[in-house]
Amino acid sequence: MTPRLIAIDNADDPEIAEFRDIRERDLTGRHHRFIAEGTVVLRMLAEAHRAGGDFAAEKVLLLRNRVDGVADILERLPEDVPVYVAEADVLDRIVGFHLHRGVLALGRRQPRDGALIERLPERSLVLVGCGISNHDNAGSMFRNAAAFDADAIFLDETSCDPLYRKAMRVSVGSVLSVPYERGGDALALLTQLAERDFAIWTLSPRGEVDIRSIPASGRMALVVGTEGEGLPQAVLSRFRSARIPQSPGLDSLNVATATGIALFAMSSTAKRI
Amino acid sequence: MTPRLIAIDNADDPEIAEFRDIRERDLTGRHHRFIAEGTVVLRMLAEAHRAGGDFAAEKVLLLRNRVDGVADILERLPEDVPVYVAEADVLDRIVGFHLHRGVLALGRRQPRDGALIERLPERSLVLVGCGISNHDNAGSMFRNAAAFDADAIFLDETSCDPLYRKAMRVSVGSVLSVPYERGGDALALLTQLAERDFAIWTLSPRGEVDIRSIPASGRMALVVGTEGEGLPQAVLSRFRSARIPQSPGLDSLNVATATGIALFAMSSTAKRI
Repeated sequence: MTPRLIAIDNADDPEIAEFRDIRERDLTGRHHRFIAEGTVVLRMLAEAHRAGGDFAAEKVLLLRNRVDGVADILERLPEDVPVYVAEADVLDRIVGFHLHRGVLALGRRQPRDGALIERLPERSLVLVGCGISNHDNAGSMFRNAAAFDADAIFLDETSCDPLYRKAMRVSVGSVLSVPYERGGDALALLTQLAERDFAIWTLSPRGEVDIRSIPASGRMALVVGTEGEGLPQAVLSRFRSARIPQSPGLDSLNVATATGIALFAMSSTAKRI
Repeated sequence: MTPRLIAIDNADDPEIAEFRDIRERDLTGRHHRFIAEGTVVLRMLAEAHRAGGDFAAEKVLLLRNRVDGVADILERLPEDVPVYVAEADVLDRIVGFHLHRGVLALGRRQPRDGALIERLPERSLVLVGCGISNHDNAGSMFRNAAAFDADAIFLDETSCDPLYRKAMRVSVGSVLSVPYERGGDALALLTQLAERDFAIWTLSPRGEVDIRSIPASGRMALVVGTEGEGLPQAVLSRFRSARIPQSPGLDSLNVATATGIALFAMSSTAKRI
């Protein structure tokens, strides 16, 4: 074991207190800290840390037999980020369940100065979520945004924090790669985007325009709401709406899938100009 | 209370034994029985029962205060389907957790005689899943197939049973509306489809053809595999492959979203001829 690695033999060790019972607690309220799980997400966190952007790694906690497998990632982290190592029985007692992946990190978000909206490129595609309270759906939105090269995500104040453990996991770390901001009122945010030349398209099963037929523009924003309630009337009545043509019936697509399809269509449209 | 309703005061009553601890158990092995949850799925089960197709309702179990809300559905069910009613404390003891929806049914699948493959229309779009072991993904595939009017789903023997409670729930009842068959070897099934004039398109991040550019044909099959392993080489090397254009990177789209996007694109293609 290199001097870098710190053995943890006691599940109650205060050094690793942030990893305790991670299923039951959430750290997002504490200065924007979050848990990153798995090799893929740890790698993304290490890269984000090196890039000096919005995210920093604070601590790593590994199952002993995973150390070799992530050695190249650990080398990319600065020396002052402690790497704790535990055997399976200790690790399971720390986290509160059997963690077979065995790769955890504590990260911190420290957004840059200046509003994201002012940093968007002249040509950009952004995703706006209103009332996305389901962690799965929030995570999937980030994953889809990464897949289709969206430039940013804006979440209104009624959406959940994407740093939540489950959202981060479902995003497969895309929360660390797609720039985002969360907070404020959806209508106010969309008005700001419109003032900056964004063509705003709300997504609704009853949208007026087929998602494949919306006109291309340099700056485009896709706005999605919850599955049950949909978007607020104040938003729907103010902006144009697009639909994904689908079989008539009670149940529309899941919001994560609908977002993926709409981003797929809009990123094709955006590339036409 | 009408004579139709049967009060359950004892959580151990053998009449409602199939609903006991539904999170922990699974009924699918028992003569293709399954649990339907929620008003939407109960309505679909009642309609499927009336239509005399692949599904029958056996029993209904309701929270007492939900009875009025589903009265119209109960009227559509034959008199010989018992409807059990319980107060919240009894219902929670039966199912083993707090069931706030309060609407459950026990259903049975009784597939028709004759292979589904022989009943497919001359023009059809089918979805084939290989190794879809995740219940969430299986359910989402049915929901997406329903949204884009796919005619059938085939699941190989290594895929999970879509009657599993979570798959049924995530499908929002589409498992009851999209014809399907499960079992057998994927390569053998695809060969049978090809012999019946299906153009077979496997979906892969490294597919040769953009999903929007595949040629239209009267009968089309989309083949999807698991996220981690993808499709078996024997399948990939035998048939043509399509891709969803996306940002290069470690993590492709979630299989449920990818299936939704591919069905969206292929159903548009199919409508062009």
